[in-house]
Amino acid sequence: MGEPLTIVSANKSFGGWHKRYRHHSTTLGCEMVFAVFLPPQAGPDSPVPVLYWLSGLTCTDENFMQKAGAMRLAAELGIAIVAPDTSPRGPDVPGDPDGSWDFGLGAGFYVNATQDPWARHYRMYDYVVTELPALIERSFPVSDRRSVSGHSMGGHGALVCALRNPGRYRSVSAFAPIANPTDCPWGEKAFSRYLGPDRRGWAEWDASLLLAEAAERLPLLVDQGDKDGFLDSQLKPEALRQAAAAAGHPLTLRMQPGYDHSYFFIASFIDDHLRHHAAALLAG
Amino acid sequence: MGEPLTIVSANKSFGGWHKRYRHHSTTLGCEMVFAVFLPPQAGPDSPVPVLYWLSGLTCTDENFMQKAGAMRLAAELGIAIVAPDTSPRGPDVPGDPDGSWDFGLGAGFYVNATQDPWARHYRMYDYVVTELPALIERSFPVSDRRSVSGHSMGGHGALVCALRNPGRYRSVSAFAPIANPTDCPWGEKAFSRYLGPDRRGWAEWDASLLLAEAAERLPLLVDQGDKDGFLDSQLKPEALRQAAAAAGHPLTLRMQPGYDHSYFFIASFIDDHLRHHAAALLAG
Repeated sequence: MGEPLTIVSANKSFGGWHKRYRHHSTTLGCEMVFAVFLPPQAGPDSPVPVLYWLSGLTCTDENFMQKAGAMRLAAELGIAIVAPDTSPRGPDVPGDPDGSWDFGLGAGFYVNATQDPWARHYRMYDYVVTELPALIERSFPVSDRRSVSGHSMGGHGALVCALRNPGRYRSVSAFAPIANPTDCPWGEKAFSRYLGPDRRGWAEWDASLLLAEAAERLPLLVDQGDKDGFLDSQLKPEALRQAAAAAGHPLTLRMQPGYDHSYFFIASFIDDHLRHHAAALLAG
Repeated sequence: MGEPLTIVSANKSFGGWHKRYRHHSTTLGCEMVFAVFLPPQAGPDSPVPVLYWLSGLTCTDENFMQKAGAMRLAAELGIAIVAPDTSPRGPDVPGDPDGSWDFGLGAGFYVNATQDPWARHYRMYDYVVTELPALIERSFPVSDRRSVSGHSMGGHGALVCALRNPGRYRSVSAFAPIANPTDCPWGEKAFSRYLGPDRRGWAEWDASLLLAEAAERLPLLVDQGDKDGFLDSQLKPEALRQAAAAAGHPLTLRMQPGYDHSYFFIASFIDDHLRHHAAALLAG
């Protein structure tokens, strides 16, 4: 059945289980840890659908599972949640030579890097779209019904994964996504290094640009706090709104008054997102 | 209006506000940080009741607010939550000379120490029962309706605070409390240092011993995971059960199968506790 999984921890939670596993990723060329929440409904004869959660800069598999308060409703709805790490890790994986927190370790940006020295390990797109779901689907009592969501860098990742893979996800949503990374400092820093200086290669990793050619009209649900300190400089949801309008792509963009970029914001609206995904994952 | 409050952070959360404040505690003789969740119902003309949450060993004001998932239902019910730190802090406050995590900083045990060098600062009982509620009630739109709950060391604290102060709290509950601290390693270590070697002085800080003389029949709600690694060695809920039975004191002790000592356990049952407190706080 392929690569072995080593369990790191297990906690009973809302009648189901929160578990962390370590495995060797062939895509990333390193050991990776991910977390999975299995709701009480999951069993050999009752596979459950899976929501993939992609976290933001500096996070690991732990932030969402500990802070979002998502397991309560996921347990009620019967949805598994998988939270990968945010970059390759380990002694062989180069980080930012400047030691910054917005590039390198904890900042994989869910792309496949093409430039040395990043191309060897920084292939988070292939990892979260292909290798990890295959591993999850042969290791746990889950179906191949998938949805994807995420926050900030991970919101960008969720939108890109869904827009590039028609039919692979039943639904998609994002919290405070980096909506137009080819035109903000975080994205420009990461893409110029991972993908090189030629900006033509960046477009396939930018949700606002991908929307123009999306082959599938998967409705996008996006929540954004209007007191988010990164709103104007980095996140740029207006670019997504304009692209959706131009392409006729269904987008629900909710500006949430008073909310910031923290997990307090995510926790406040995660139930809405879970119900959005449940409507697609549990239909028919 | 007494000592000034300095705001440390503010995050909108579930339509209300999670805020952290710093203040000088005269009781503890040091600067303290606490967290408060104010539900959307709280206003100058609509004071809300308060649930005090006492955390366990090594925690600060942050653990419960970030990990318990309590704000969702507290916002719905209209209950404020106050989470103090777990010990005095700061450069003047002595910690454990051995540097252990189960005594000193992060381990105040909600007692008033009588022994040097602890007696000067380690007065967490007076702080959480008297000074902090007085400060909260004159600084925020809250009423004098109070409840108290906590986890592990803080579960012990919650039970002791309620049992020693008839009429002060409308309800009490605990998660995995140190139920009989005069007869477990954590309690014996802390009490012998904070209170001295004479065990006769320890009884007034032990919930199982206090139950025998409780002047008020406040119903106790206690949840305990049966896979909690500290269950047999440190927590001893059977002592509480026997004391309650002997005294005819109402106790609902729920052994939760498969659950451990973590915040995944707390999150799984916090809604039940909030409803328990709401029934008392919001009545009549």
